[in-house]
Amino acid sequence: MFAEIITIGDEILIGQIIDTNSAYIAQELNKIGISVYQISSVQDHREHILQALEEACSRADLILITGGLGPTKDDITKHTIAEYLEDTLVLNEEVLAHIEYLFEKYISTPISDMNRKQALVPSRATILHNQYGTAPGMWMQRGKQILVSMPGVPFEMKSLMQREVLPRIQSEFHRPFILHRTIMTYGLGESAIAERIEDWESELPEFVKLAYLPNLGKVRLRLTAKGNDKEKISEAVDVAIQKLYGIIGDIIYGEEEEGSLESGIAKIMTEKGLTLATAESFTGGKIAEQLTTIPGASAYFRGSVVGYATQIKNEVLGVPEDLIAKHSVVSAEVAKTMAVRVRDMFKADFAISTTGNAGPTKGDSDADIGTVYIAIATPNTVFAEQFSMGNHRVRIVQKSVHKAFELLKKEILKI
Amino acid sequence: MFAEIITIGDEILIGQIIDTNSAYIAQELNKIGISVYQISSVQDHREHILQALEEACSRADLILITGGLGPTKDDITKHTIAEYLEDTLVLNEEVLAHIEYLFEKYISTPISDMNRKQALVPSRATILHNQYGTAPGMWMQRGKQILVSMPGVPFEMKSLMQREVLPRIQSEFHRPFILHRTIMTYGLGESAIAERIEDWESELPEFVKLAYLPNLGKVRLRLTAKGNDKEKISEAVDVAIQKLYGIIGDIIYGEEEEGSLESGIAKIMTEKGLTLATAESFTGGKIAEQLTTIPGASAYFRGSVVGYATQIKNEVLGVPEDLIAKHSVVSAEVAKTMAVRVRDMFKADFAISTTGNAGPTKGDSDADIGTVYIAIATPNTVFAEQFSMGNHRVRIVQKSVHKAFELLKKEILKI
Repeated sequence: MFAEIITIGDEILIGQIIDTNSAYIAQELNKIGISVYQISSVQDHREHILQALEEACSRADLILITGGLGPTKDDITKHTIAEYLEDTLVLNEEVLAHIEYLFEKYISTPISDMNRKQALVPSRATILHNQYGTAPGMWMQRGKQILVSMPGVPFEMKSLMQREVLPRIQSEFHRPFILHRTIMTYGLGESAIAERIEDWESELPEFVKLAYLPNLGKVRLRLTAKGNDKEKISEAVDVAIQKLYGIIGDIIYGEEEEGSLESGIAKIMTEKGLTLATAESFTGGKIAEQLTTIPGASAYFRGSVVGYATQIKNEVLGVPEDLIAKHSVVSAEVAKTMAVRVRDMFKADFAISTTGNAGPTKGDSDADIGTVYIAIATPNTVFAEQFSMGNHRVRIVQKSVHKAFELLKKEILKI
Repeated sequence: MFAEIITIGDEILIGQIIDTNSAYIAQELNKIGISVYQISSVQDHREHILQALEEACSRADLILITGGLGPTKDDITKHTIAEYLEDTLVLNEEVLAHIEYLFEKYISTPISDMNRKQALVPSRATILHNQYGTAPGMWMQRGKQILVSMPGVPFEMKSLMQREVLPRIQSEFHRPFILHRTIMTYGLGESAIAERIEDWESELPEFVKLAYLPNLGKVRLRLTAKGNDKEKISEAVDVAIQKLYGIIGDIIYGEEEEGSLESGIAKIMTEKGLTLATAESFTGGKIAEQLTTIPGASAYFRGSVVGYATQIKNEVLGVPEDLIAKHSVVSAEVAKTMAVRVRDMFKADFAISTTGNAGPTKGDSDADIGTVYIAIATPNTVFAEQFSMGNHRVRIVQKSVHKAFELLKKEILKI
């Protein structure tokens, strides 16, 4: 059984927006055992939408469609799906009442006929209540196939997925069990790893698939297994992973957990009652931003000083001028002092600091582009490590933020 | 003439990564007058790739393909494209020399046969040099159609697009002129706008298309015109926009510039020699992070204090405790004091501060979720504005960051 995702909207095809909806939907479907065969992004054109529906319906049993449900002329998804299903649009009183309620409560302009038309839905569609917006979700049948239409606004779509779509899929479809496990390695390229595990790979059971995911100087190995016998699948993957440790245990540094490195940090620090502050130079606030993206960050994250200019390291953080002069602003000594100062300034248990050169120009130090120092202050001590992060500005910052989280996590696990 | 984009990789279909390549490629193609008909994301499966190539070739003259070019078994794009084109793979000496050079210079493990196999390319393909990686780009012909294969690693793909693919497309294809202009409005929903401009919309020339793009409480109106006569098209769009100002000039606040609000701020502040600091509460470093994403930020951005905990506003920023007690930590008074303090602490000309409640819980104040204050300190004064940003955590932060940039931009333009 396969699903397909169709995202509708000219804004995707001209590159004005990045389609993030598909990845979200694909991830949620995988969690409940449904594989996505293809994702297609198509224009707000009748013929094109009809063609995409035709193609998707020839391959999949479940078609999830987002976008094109607005009140204006360019939004034609609803009419086109109705045409494809040989259905007609009828006014739904409950949807109309909800639209009127939203206008009354949240929208300053008076409701118009165009808004009321959003209550027109295919006569045989089951309506999925969209609490955040005026365009309803729709669950439609075509023989044994299910078509679901949702608005393209990401938070409206996500809410509909969680409250309406996923529960219905779970109750209506017989789903196999899908297991993904991802092993993280460092220090070897994907081809070098592939050579070492060649025999192991060719001996994998047919229902276990291996993928190499190189990223940020590491290679993750993702094992995916699918089938009806959950126990058999789990065991086969367990055995395979155990064998893998026997072959390349020297380069494995763990298994990818559900969620990100920073959510792991949030969990551990909150549970242990530890607090954190950061002093960021070239990472420019990205560490703080990633930590505070997770709800509940105030439980452990005290705050940050982003000292982009060299003077700030002296004037705000109190790194002595002669220390900077002696060692250069990009140095282990400056990184360590920054970490200790911000830890004390914010009365935190731990601190991260970063100083380095992300390019494109050399900046206030002689350090090569890509040279960075990351320091971790713990309650009792401080240390700094030097890294060469390549020559690509955005990647230098990404890799450094990731590395900082790795270093910190190791320390807080010791407490 | 149309293009299609095919992105290959199981990691897209299971939602492990968001496909950002497609939006980049679509944007770059549009800039040079090429419309993208469809974007398809498919699995690393031979039959599926063949089917996707077949479908795309039935609709478009130019097919851009990313992904599946790694050295390991799961990467089968090259073999499959060669099969589709009835070509065979041959060893390319120049590619091999480049792979050997990259291994010698950057990679600690010795080169293997698997790595050398990346130098196998379809015999009739034109090789596009990939300076950053071992997988070359390939430019292939099929009758009058062009197929281009590029690695999926975004920065390798982008470099290939800029240096090799786009220049070739420009010289080989006759391209129409495409013009996009986006008018920004505020204060009215899309249906209310649509009613006011109904007559205008129906009088638009056939080659001018209108799209409504609602986002963050605003509606952008995008006009797209396409044709061979550049002058005629530009003039028609100019006339249409002038008329539009006559009808809804009261809600238009400008035209979307190339690039973001923050890059506008960077440009203005750098040119005028102004400096900026920020004090961020619930935005958690996102303002600093967005500013420092732009190269050259050190020319004007001095730094930031991220004071997530209420105490920090007192202890680090020096907001008096009784002021917080009297007005609450989420208040105009606290926002203004934060902005002035950080401006002075970092010796900057301007400062932005934020304080508010992004949820999910009420935090240290009684303020409703979504209630935020943004203050701007200028060289001589300070002011704060209150906003209700809804009840969705991520959107509250996004909208606030955007609003902060808007408020600042207005002030720096006055200098």
